[in-house]
Amino acid sequence: MIPDLASRVHDHSYRVDPIIRTLLDTDFYKFLMLQMIWKLKPDVHATFGLHNRSGAVRLADCIDEKELTAQLDHARSLRFQKNELIWLAGNSFYGRTKIFEPGFLEYLGDFRLPPYQLSRRNGEFELRFEGLWRETTMWEVPALAILNELRARSAMFRMGRFELDVLYARAKAKLWSKVERLRILAREGPLKISDFGTRRRHGFLWQRWCIEALREGVGEALIGTSNVKHAMDLGLEAIGTNAHELPMVYAALAENDAALREAPFTVLEDWSRLYDGNLLVLLPDTFGTTNFLKAAPDWAADWTGARPDSKPPIEGAEELIDWWKARGRDPGQKLIVLSDGMTIDSIEASVRHLRGRAQVSIGWGTNLTNDFAGCVPHGADVDVMPPSLVCKVIEVEGRPAVKLSDNPAKFLGPKDEIARYERVFGYQPGVWRQA
Amino acid sequence: MIPDLASRVHDHSYRVDPIIRTLLDTDFYKFLMLQMIWKLKPDVHATFGLHNRSGAVRLADCIDEKELTAQLDHARSLRFQKNELIWLAGNSFYGRTKIFEPGFLEYLGDFRLPPYQLSRRNGEFELRFEGLWRETTMWEVPALAILNELRARSAMFRMGRFELDVLYARAKAKLWSKVERLRILAREGPLKISDFGTRRRHGFLWQRWCIEALREGVGEALIGTSNVKHAMDLGLEAIGTNAHELPMVYAALAENDAALREAPFTVLEDWSRLYDGNLLVLLPDTFGTTNFLKAAPDWAADWTGARPDSKPPIEGAEELIDWWKARGRDPGQKLIVLSDGMTIDSIEASVRHLRGRAQVSIGWGTNLTNDFAGCVPHGADVDVMPPSLVCKVIEVEGRPAVKLSDNPAKFLGPKDEIARYERVFGYQPGVWRQA
Repeated sequence: MIPDLASRVHDHSYRVDPIIRTLLDTDFYKFLMLQMIWKLKPDVHATFGLHNRSGAVRLADCIDEKELTAQLDHARSLRFQKNELIWLAGNSFYGRTKIFEPGFLEYLGDFRLPPYQLSRRNGEFELRFEGLWRETTMWEVPALAILNELRARSAMFRMGRFELDVLYARAKAKLWSKVERLRILAREGPLKISDFGTRRRHGFLWQRWCIEALREGVGEALIGTSNVKHAMDLGLEAIGTNAHELPMVYAALAENDAALREAPFTVLEDWSRLYDGNLLVLLPDTFGTTNFLKAAPDWAADWTGARPDSKPPIEGAEELIDWWKARGRDPGQKLIVLSDGMTIDSIEASVRHLRGRAQVSIGWGTNLTNDFAGCVPHGADVDVMPPSLVCKVIEVEGRPAVKLSDNPAKFLGPKDEIARYERVFGYQPGVWRQA
Repeated sequence: MIPDLASRVHDHSYRVDPIIRTLLDTDFYKFLMLQMIWKLKPDVHATFGLHNRSGAVRLADCIDEKELTAQLDHARSLRFQKNELIWLAGNSFYGRTKIFEPGFLEYLGDFRLPPYQLSRRNGEFELRFEGLWRETTMWEVPALAILNELRARSAMFRMGRFELDVLYARAKAKLWSKVERLRILAREGPLKISDFGTRRRHGFLWQRWCIEALREGVGEALIGTSNVKHAMDLGLEAIGTNAHELPMVYAALAENDAALREAPFTVLEDWSRLYDGNLLVLLPDTFGTTNFLKAAPDWAADWTGARPDSKPPIEGAEELIDWWKARGRDPGQKLIVLSDGMTIDSIEASVRHLRGRAQVSIGWGTNLTNDFAGCVPHGADVDVMPPSLVCKVIEVEGRPAVKLSDNPAKFLGPKDEIARYERVFGYQPGVWRQA
């Protein structure tokens, strides 16, 4: 075999193996939200911060700070390419063309990720992004993808050539066995599934393989991917609507308790000024689902669907179905997007349970793009288990941001503010809480 | 990525993708036997013929005759390379240097595979090798490897790029799960295992991967490979001693029943004129093990060990242990080579059963190098199941050759000759026959 000398030398001498290859390597909903922020809240400052929910894994113990800096700096050096902006302008999303207005695309043309603040405390990185919301918001996904991939790399760095070969063979075999189960599920009845695994993925190329495996195995049942770069390259639909940061920021900006109580619905009003149709998906759990649904104005029940994101999927879906029925709407016409920690088991169970009762769409994340449990040839799984990292808005115009959610493990914010939010929203703990 | 244009064009235009890359790509015992044939039976003619024990798979239905011819012709074009002959001369085998004499190495220097006769009948290939035994014998392993790989290729030809990726990922994961079981077995106590999978392998590169996986997983417990090319390249021991063709030819040459009865032991005498030490491994089952052991001269019990090859492994080993005991030898010092259709299950069972009672060495074949059951992403396993092919001596100087073995499914030869051999050897059917 004649070696490819140029590639060989290049492979051994390049400065950084970039984790983020393009600013399109992020989730689609970031662009929808960014356009809204750019249009309606251009001057609001919001700080995002890294939060590691996995107590067992201390990131600074396994990730080299210099490498982290190099990857973050590399991401900051990126600009949208001309062909990417043309694609964003010319492609249709959710069946609609020209979803992004010319002024916004012009804004993207000049966009770069803002500075970051990195420090260390007790074996943990403190990573913060301060500045204008319309800039800091774009760090969430690349920052998480960088941290997750650096952690995976640190485990793989200790493996030999052959171990890596076995590792990937097993991961591929493992994913394919899930794909086969989905194929059976798709044969039984309707199935809609999309990749939501960018932020906690093992790596960019691995995510692509996972998406291609789904396409190979379930064909049309794969309705798309949340990752804009993969969507563009693979000719798939870009999927996603909005996230908790919208109500969190609106809530933090509220001047008093009455405004706070209204904030989640003000978000919906603003959203519907920009988007319609299948983009009208409620995210009801930011400050507790039950009180949200109770307080929601009637027009909210006209939205296309909802994404329950912190209750067990079937319970979350049942609550929504009951709510639509109580408001006189037909749940069979409504879309329920399940995307909170879905596994192949919970996908099968919830799709089978909900068939014929609502339109279900699965957003499959970590268990799709970063499941290497049982795949390490020598050594412990713990090294390749993805830590539960989030990058959330923590401060808005100097005021703390708060998230309650239906799962107390996901609460974010100072204790006194959490108590205030619980009181204002009439948060109902207990019955829906996850074990 | 800059494409490697030369490789790309070459990959799409080469005439034949050779299955046999070198004359060293064969089993080591062929060289030991060839030296004996060259030295003691240089003028004997022996015809080898292909026999397909798998009634269900008709080879000519799935293998293109032109491709088969191209591969056989390619194998005939090969000569030993200078570095290969130097390695055969300079390497030590079974702890002994200069195992091959200079005259024999000179003979190899001029060696090429003799002509073949290929025809078709009822969807089967008839493949025969006629000529001097010292030439035709060398076709056995490459002919089988070619047929097995062409069959595997015919199944893979219908698979897309992604299916192939999944196929190999699953096969690797499957093999590694076996390696992990062997690792546990090696931790419990002594384990000696070697690759015997050349003839029924999926392919040359896959065989190499399997050997490397064993080395990665069990380290020193991998004592070598029967494949001379892999042994040379990987720095492993070449493993193997002798095969049924020796007693079969000697038996066919016997002028009368008395000479026939003696033939299996004449082989042993001749063998021990050339080889000693660990190369003295009895192959007792050619005409039935029980009668062989009963009739064997006492010095046969001094040989280092034996390879029971057609009884269930534990029963075959127990019979040998009883025999050594009856002959006053210590079975604990004897080597038992188990190599007949070993699977990970039968390896575990027999190693655990025989530990402390005899030295056991496993020769792992098809289940190591060609186990793709359950690995095909779309489609049936049957396409990748290796057919049970053998290439055996069928005629010697115009007389039919016969094999009985302990397993009637492995009988070879004309009915009347089989009956004569059964009578002459006092073949005892029944109790040891495999279910």
